[in-house]
Amino acid sequence: MSLTFWVGLLAATLTTASFFPQAWKTWRSQRADDFSWSYLLLFGMGILMWDLYGLLRRDAAILLANTITLALVGVIILTKLRTLSR
Amino acid sequence: MSLTFWVGLLAATLTTASFFPQAWKTWRSQRADDFSWSYLLLFGMGILMWDLYGLLRRDAAILLANTITLALVGVIILTKLRTLSR
Repeated sequence: MSLTFWVGLLAATLTTASFFPQAWKTWRSQRADDFSWSYLLLFGMGILMWDLYGLLRRDAAILLANTITLALVGVIILTKLRTLSR
Repeated sequence: MSLTFWVGLLAATLTTASFFPQAWKTWRSQRADDFSWSYLLLFGMGILMWDLYGLLRRDAAILLANTITLALVGVIILTKLRTLSR
């Protein structure tokens, strides 16, 4: 495996893993006021497109990383929805 | 250009573009309390790795998209730093 492959793997791992502490903080605090709806929706749609890209390329790594990210972004979206009336 | 290429381009455009409204909201409100430091730092490092990946692959699209994203995430990090003492 080349250096490029490992840099890509590290990049994907870091960007996906970053959403674990964020989803945890958001869920625990039940606060997502500082998140922009536009960010959450555009980013969510983008991650869905990355999933489709992974499917089309039959690339399991892209598909897996983006499915995990989508689930974690979903936690933030759900929290913001639940606290809409506050 | 194949369907796969256009899906990838749409995915990259959406995930990068999503940070414009977020950086704008964060800068205008001067509030980034709901963002986790772990998220911002891991995500920032991940985007830096995607930049390096783009350099190694000599892929201008990856390099451009991630440099823009990094600058916008930088706005959120800067805002969170500025409001640390609040």
